Amino acid sequence: MPLFIGVDIGGTKVLAAAVSSAGRVLRTATRTTPGRRVEARLVEDALTEAVQEIAGVRRVGAIGIAAAGFVDAQGERVRFAPHLPWQDEGVRARLAERWSAPVVLDNDANCAARAELTYGAVGDAESAVVVTLGTGIGGALILDGEVLRGYNGMAGEFGHNQVVPGGRPCECGGTGCWEQYCSGNALTRFVRDQGVEDLAGPAITAAAAAGDPVALAAFAEVGEWLGVGVANLVASFDPQIVVIGGGLSAAGDLLLEPARHALRESLVGAAHRTVPPVVRAALGPEAGAVGAADLARQRFRSAGTRARARLRAARETARRP
Amino acid sequence: MPLFIGVDIGGTKVLAAAVSSAGRVLRTATRTTPGRRVEARLVEDALTEAVQEIAGVRRVGAIGIAAAGFVDAQGERVRFAPHLPWQDEGVRARLAERWSAPVVLDNDANCAARAELTYGAVGDAESAVVVTLGTGIGGALILDGEVLRGYNGMAGEFGHNQVVPGGRPCECGGTGCWEQYCSGNALTRFVRDQGVEDLAGPAITAAAAAGDPVALAAFAEVGEWLGVGVANLVASFDPQIVVIGGGLSAAGDLLLEPARHALRESLVGAAHRTVPPVVRAALGPEAGAVGAADLARQRFRSAGTRARARLRAARETARRP
Repeated sequence: MPLFIGVDIGGTKVLAAAVSSAGRVLRTATRTTPGRRVEARLVEDALTEAVQEIAGVRRVGAIGIAAAGFVDAQGERVRFAPHLPWQDEGVRARLAERWSAPVVLDNDANCAARAELTYGAVGDAESAVVVTLGTGIGGALILDGEVLRGYNGMAGEFGHNQVVPGGRPCECGGTGCWEQYCSGNALTRFVRDQGVEDLAGPAITAAAAAGDPVALAAFAEVGEWLGVGVANLVASFDPQIVVIGGGLSAAGDLLLEPARHALRESLVGAAHRTVPPVVRAALGPEAGAVGAADLARQRFRSAGTRARARLRAARETARRP
Repeated sequence: MPLFIGVDIGGTKVLAAAVSSAGRVLRTATRTTPGRRVEARLVEDALTEAVQEIAGVRRVGAIGIAAAGFVDAQGERVRFAPHLPWQDEGVRARLAERWSAPVVLDNDANCAARAELTYGAVGDAESAVVVTLGTGIGGALILDGEVLRGYNGMAGEFGHNQVVPGGRPCECGGTGCWEQYCSGNALTRFVRDQGVEDLAGPAITAAAAAGDPVALAAFAEVGEWLGVGVANLVASFDPQIVVIGGGLSAAGDLLLEPARHALRESLVGAAHRTVPPVVRAALGPEAGAVGAADLARQRFRSAGTRARARLRAARETARRP
């Protein structure tokens, strides 16, 4: 059986994983992302090293890449990636040639949503809003059991929805973007604003779990913003379920209970509809890589199946008198 | 040929229309909506009168109802309608029995979007955001050439997305809803706030067209809010086109130019994608009725076609030796 590999490339880390057809991570390899102001070649070298470490001498079926950036509708290019040196380059074809293997490319949040859809918290739901809370917000919409890609391949970028007119400036160039109020960065900022300097990232989650009042208040505020933003998405898309993933989701109900409360308060007509459950993602930090591997497997396994079916059909035709 | 009739019922008016298969309005009848604090029977009497005036002695193929409210996913009930006396009642079946005709029911903004999809401004686009600007905001999303209904049948209710935390109170019970800043009511409020008391509704559009500076400033502000809200929807959904309908769209570029400008300014990664065109709806105030008639025609014509096909197949089978 050939290996199917998923590679998640973010602003800080490259994570490659060999993934079974049941979504189990068999083996991982990591590299540091060389940065955004370097030659693209250096990033591709890091990807190549991680893939080679995973593959060893095994035959590779296909490789999926989950990239932190806007990927075009054809899955050929990274159009816009604030944390990566790729811009409008035909990355997929170049890596496929370098690796002599089939390669597919998608946005990292789309890949994480795909993993939740195939193996995780989406379950039997036909439609879902998936919010990935890390440093910023990654998002995806699932409709009719598929990740919605959109006309430009850029659907689900709701982290940059404006929620406060003239609000906090965002790296995207806008102001008042949702991720400025609801993300790992927002959590750390809240704690700093309370005068606590030595608490950041996962340590805030640990402090909240231990009952620290500042950390708890930080999750209450970020959770409320999560619920308000989710209410807007639910009013627009009316999904069956809402799945919250990413690093912050490790806080579980400390984050999700304030979000559920704000969703019920903010959602139009909440008393006259089924308010969707807000659940924690089932897959951990490897969700992006798992989803990318699944995308690669589905794309190229089915191509293989179709090719074999065509071959059989051609042979049978040839045998006829 | 049987008649297909669409009936649009809003908070102030009932509009019934016989509509050709090409989307042409053949004949209309109107009644005043009896109000929301009356017996449901009175509203249904008004609908019945309008339908009877249209139908006369002609055979009716089917009737579609476009209702200003939340319609359930099965199209059987109006779940929540601030301007109508219906609540959680099986309206569709009751009217079908009363009229002895097939009846379909959907949300009015969904019907208007369907009319734009079948006969209007959506054209060949596969996906669209449709915003209907009247007293408030009606909305719909089109995906893969279909109006997205959502899990509860309530997709597209983005008029109640919160755009200003703690902002203007809304009839829905929330605060800072988009339609408080971007609608006919918002336009009138802006003009009043400038000290102009004798200008409201379509008169503001006429005044703006004639160069009145207060009316022009009102459209500039409402148009900017339109663009900001549309940017959020485009970031989430990535549609091929944005269609603006409803009474306010009669102002054309006075409304749409500020909206296009704000969309380009607010949309994340605008320089790295195709920013969708923002166009005026092609159908006028009858869009809801036209879409409802189209829904009725598609539903029941295809049922008839299937029934006839089945009959033909059964006859052929019976003729075989």
